Amino acid sequence: MIVVMNYGAGEEQIAAVVARLEQAGFQAHVSRGVERTIIGVVGDRTRVAEMALEAMPGVERVVPILQPYKMVCRAFNENGSVVRVGHLEIGGEAVHVMAGPCAVESREQLLAAARAVKAAGATILRGGAYKPRTSPYSFQGLEERGLEILAEAREETGLLVVTEVVDPRTVELVARYADILQIGARNMQNFCLLREVARVDKPVLLKRGPSATIEEWLMAAEYVMLGGNHRIILCERGIRGFDSYTRNTLDLTAVPVVKHHSHLPVVVDPSHAIGKWRFVPPMALAAVAAGADGLLVEVHPDPMEALCDGPQSLTPENFAAMMERLRRVAAAVGRRIAEPQAPVALAG
Amino acid sequence: MIVVMNYGAGEEQIAAVVARLEQAGFQAHVSRGVERTIIGVVGDRTRVAEMALEAMPGVERVVPILQPYKMVCRAFNENGSVVRVGHLEIGGEAVHVMAGPCAVESREQLLAAARAVKAAGATILRGGAYKPRTSPYSFQGLEERGLEILAEAREETGLLVVTEVVDPRTVELVARYADILQIGARNMQNFCLLREVARVDKPVLLKRGPSATIEEWLMAAEYVMLGGNHRIILCERGIRGFDSYTRNTLDLTAVPVVKHHSHLPVVVDPSHAIGKWRFVPPMALAAVAAGADGLLVEVHPDPMEALCDGPQSLTPENFAAMMERLRRVAAAVGRRIAEPQAPVALAG
Amino acid sequence: MIVVMNYGAGEEQIAAVVARLEQAGFQAHVSRGVERTIIGVVGDRTRVAEMALEAMPGVERVVPILQPYKMVCRAFNENGSVVRVGHLEIGGEAVHVMAGPCAVESREQLLAAARAVKAAGATILRGGAYKPRTSPYSFQGLEERGLEILAEAREETGLLVVTEVVDPRTVELVARYADILQIGARNMQNFCLLREVARVDKPVLLKRGPSATIEEWLMAAEYVMLGGNHRIILCERGIRGFDSYTRNTLDLTAVPVVKHHSHLPVVVDPSHAIGKWRFVPPMALAAVAAGADGLLVEVHPDPMEALCDGPQSLTPENFAAMMERLRRVAAAVGRRIAEPQAPVALAG
Amino acid sequence: MIVVMNYGAGEEQIAAVVARLEQAGFQAHVSRGVERTIIGVVGDRTRVAEMALEAMPGVERVVPILQPYKMVCRAFNENGSVVRVGHLEIGGEAVHVMAGPCAVESREQLLAAARAVKAAGATILRGGAYKPRTSPYSFQGLEERGLEILAEAREETGLLVVTEVVDPRTVELVARYADILQIGARNMQNFCLLREVARVDKPVLLKRGPSATIEEWLMAAEYVMLGGNHRIILCERGIRGFDSYTRNTLDLTAVPVVKHHSHLPVVVDPSHAIGKWRFVPPMALAAVAAGADGLLVEVHPDPMEALCDGPQSLTPENFAAMMERLRRVAAAVGRRIAEPQAPVALAG
Repeated sequence: MIVVMNYGAGEEQIAAVVARLEQAGFQAHVSRGVERTIIGVVGDRTRVAEMALEAMPGVERVVPILQPYKMVCRAFNENGSVVRVGHLEIGGEAVHVMAGPCAVESREQLLAAARAVKAAGATILRGGAYKPRTSPYSFQGLEERGLEILAEAREETGLLVVTEVVDPRTVELVARYADILQIGARNMQNFCLLREVARVDKPVLLKRGPSATIEEWLMAAEYVMLGGNHRIILCERGIRGFDSYTRNTLDLTAVPVVKHHSHLPVVVDPSHAIGKWRFVPPMALAAVAAGADGLLVEVHPDPMEALCDGPQSLTPENFAAMMERLRRVAAAVGRRIAEPQAPVALAG
Repeated sequence: MIVVMNYGAGEEQIAAVVARLEQAGFQAHVSRGVERTIIGVVGDRTRVAEMALEAMPGVERVVPILQPYKMVCRAFNENGSVVRVGHLEIGGEAVHVMAGPCAVESREQLLAAARAVKAAGATILRGGAYKPRTSPYSFQGLEERGLEILAEAREETGLLVVTEVVDPRTVELVARYADILQIGARNMQNFCLLREVARVDKPVLLKRGPSATIEEWLMAAEYVMLGGNHRIILCERGIRGFDSYTRNTLDLTAVPVVKHHSHLPVVVDPSHAIGKWRFVPPMALAAVAAGADGLLVEVHPDPMEALCDGPQSLTPENFAAMMERLRRVAAAVGRRIAEPQAPVALAG
Repeated sequence: MIVVMNYGAGEEQIAAVVARLEQAGFQAHVSRGVERTIIGVVGDRTRVAEMALEAMPGVERVVPILQPYKMVCRAFNENGSVVRVGHLEIGGEAVHVMAGPCAVESREQLLAAARAVKAAGATILRGGAYKPRTSPYSFQGLEERGLEILAEAREETGLLVVTEVVDPRTVELVARYADILQIGARNMQNFCLLREVARVDKPVLLKRGPSATIEEWLMAAEYVMLGGNHRIILCERGIRGFDSYTRNTLDLTAVPVVKHHSHLPVVVDPSHAIGKWRFVPPMALAAVAAGADGLLVEVHPDPMEALCDGPQSLTPENFAAMMERLRRVAAAVGRRIAEPQAPVALAG
Repeated sequence: MIVVMNYGAGEEQIAAVVARLEQAGFQAHVSRGVERTIIGVVGDRTRVAEMALEAMPGVERVVPILQPYKMVCRAFNENGSVVRVGHLEIGGEAVHVMAGPCAVESREQLLAAARAVKAAGATILRGGAYKPRTSPYSFQGLEERGLEILAEAREETGLLVVTEVVDPRTVELVARYADILQIGARNMQNFCLLREVARVDKPVLLKRGPSATIEEWLMAAEYVMLGGNHRIILCERGIRGFDSYTRNTLDLTAVPVVKHHSHLPVVVDPSHAIGKWRFVPPMALAAVAAGADGLLVEVHPDPMEALCDGPQSLTPENFAAMMERLRRVAAAVGRRIAEPQAPVALAG
């Protein structure tokens, strides 16, 4: 932490800041430049931030130096964390593709989607039973019935299931059915929900909020990890941009940046980021080339009939074609696309 | 709703889109331009959006024409809504100032703040008992004890109380103490929470999300109104920008824009938007000049000791000086700053 | 300048950074924290930035501490600069309204506009003779003929003239006709053009670029001031945002922020920022309340026939009504709207 | 073009809009919905936009339907354009890597860089002789001396040369030395400069402005193409974002989006986008996977001594390692990295 004093700040003002810092148990190092005096502070950034030094006379700015996250920091696990989900490992050599429809609409639709994505090589099935929708007039999901259908699809196909949880009151219910609990972008800073999933023994897929900085995203993960759940998968899904050609701006650079600053695995959701199916395959390839540990891709047996996000969903044919290309790109960067196992493997 | 066909889209593709629309009960008007064919669709935008027409061959884009909100739309109440809160009216001629500390820290701190803001002319006391904080290591609020302190301050001063609710499980509890339930920016699209406050007989102050479009913000209000609670006050509090000179970018233009498109009253929170107390008074004046129906301002008896958001809090002296100037600007635009009543008025 | 070393950076890495800094003539102060070592650097920020310290082993980040601008800095002229333009003073007690059409379209159109804005109380006439347009198919301006018409309008009305300069090769030509040279938003970092207007003895109105930070904007002004032209007026005109309800996001907070950090006067252009005439008057009032030293407002005798930016232009009637309200708000904040003089006053 | 009338717009208002459109030579189709009336307009979008229909009573919004660009549109050349530069072809099967330092600093520095990037497989040498710098106190380039050094490096290595042009007055001079004229991001809408490079018989590399939409970028290219220069290469180099972890937000999705809407080749500059060398290689791989036709990469023989952008420059060793990985990714997506030829091939 660095305290920058105003141009012309007086000695007594400098002394007051130092006194206040030392009183609070920090070490303060005064450094007098030609134009300004700055005070270096050794100690916990969060506590310094809460001292409101900027409200003191003569203080211009307080500049944070260290990252505020601790448990999700790369230094916590230099080799990178591998998150176990059932028989799968996310964050290792294999890249996992999680695919399926935006929303569970019916038993028929979901089973068709599950079979198709498994046939093409996905290992995890995605599908929303609880849907956070911008409009109250939009389809809001099948809720518990949707969870049952997801579980049935898992049983039939051996795919594991990732599904969104939106309410702290239903975390336990969703955790009974799901293999991975998804925190959606709009809930990234729903701290009640984060505290609740932190208590559950299921991995959490934490989407980045639409205008979250990487630091805020990692701080949200810190809530979950501090709460006791260490199995966290981060998911980049596009940030708010100014251009309407795509729904959001996919910030792929977040992949190597997050992997540099944190030990957690990172996956990418190009479907929500872009909003147009046509651009999903090239960006899925790019995500793997950039180092992503997995993908979340929307696939619908009949996108035109989808109750949610049809325009961004791939058909099973397009998805299968994309998987072929993904395998080649994964190999080119020294990885491989994970292959699904037979359902029997799940018995244990 | 307008469907724009691709350059070179064939007749059979156009016919397929028309057939699909008519099958779904819409009227479709085909208009052949020199370069493109477009199809006008008469019917509910939300339902058309869900048909995923963009996934059909030959379709380039689907362009929404009408606003998707209905109950919060200006046409619903051409004269503008006045929201009653206890003995106060928000959205009328009087401009209400809601002031107080970011967080309730102690009985002494809150009572000192309450007395100070009342003396300067605030009518509503703000203060957080439940604090959504970016970092799990930051002060998280006094919770129910904070609510009790707020209620005590109301009793003593006659100020009404606005405080944030963050969890659907505590809405009822907070509603027992508060006069206005605040939905924070990060919870603007926490739909579970919106549905919960919609069921309560207390006005809701709905902050705009940090990257929410005005349409998304109004759709969030639509959730509350559709759920049965018509007493909604919108609050602009800054949107995410690219410049770090201020914490957020205060989008004051949202005030006249929202008042044009919706009948709901709008207030402005310059403290959170800007993050630096020095710039709060000029922007408070600007907000009233732009037509805001009220202000949310952070005031702390001792900003340097604040556990939360000290750098953006006004001292009681600065707040009182600002109120003087606000009265003059309000008069210049044909309004007045509401004055607090004596506590006895609350007895009923 | 602060150099933050990586977690785990070795002693020899720290020593190498210090050696490199000292070799280059800087003082380096090493401060060893519990988690990290940081090195404080005393010296010119720009030169340190160019040393590429971030490329050295063990270095995590270099954090700038001081503002990089010098001549436009508030400390350069604590009382604030007043820019003289002919008989007018911008930056003093009086708020100047610069009004007129987006583009000079014809003699008739411009004279009608000039008479109307003068009658309502503007002191400066705006109008573009050279128009930077997104599309090459749009009207590009009357060029020198437009300048002649502007000069004729000045002669008739006594209004001073502000008009845009877009090409370093025509700066001298435009300066022969104009009283203030406008640098448009898209040219804020056209450094050739900035160097050229720096050599001319005419004040410069420097618009903020659509995605310029306040620091970049002040650095652009520094180019002009360093080049020898000290008469600079800054103009906030909206920044790029994510919402399409308005054309840009008017960042009114920039007004008090810039006045805090710089001595230069600041005016606001709500017309370009918003793009819809309906919202221009409330935001003009807000700008004056926030402390703006002037306004740039588009007024067209017949907005429906405008060749450029009709939707954001006020009619003469709407403009006159707005001026009435502006006078009241200006008075409320201790200022006044400047009144135009008779043309004869210009003779000298 | 669609004109949306206000809720409650009267018949005479609708008739007035139709009359005005027909008078101007457009066809207008009225479509009466349940809530609103909309008017479809057949004709040139640019001309309609200039009619300022939004200023007419009863009109709510005018919605553009067609893209405003014509010559750069994909339909203009369905197969995609291949831009010839000397003996090279950009936009074909081969992916070209343009590498070199940010700025030409000296003969020694540039020749060392040129040899290194050629040895690693670049085909084009980059290096700025004219540098647009945010600060007037930063190194501004060697100007013509820099061009001479670039030409010497071309002669020795056989690499072609891309360098930035910043002033319409020096376009001819730069074109005498350079093989490709670069328009920098901050000059994307410097229309004088665009018109000047349109007249020259050298290919143009047009960088996307930091807050330019894809449509604005393509419109800038339209200026060049309409001016007579059809050899345009688009370059994505990051857009302004809200997060300071990287300098800009690299918008890789722009690659497939632009290739869908336009026939022009697209290259990517990860160095400027990101600003930190560490993250350049993964994003270069991602760019090729996403379909980029080339890369612009900063390489400096000694990044720590760079006068400009050292933190984002690769060392020759890191660059060579990246090239190896790029070849594998290019092959995986059915392309190849172009290899440099011997200098003798340039003789003709």
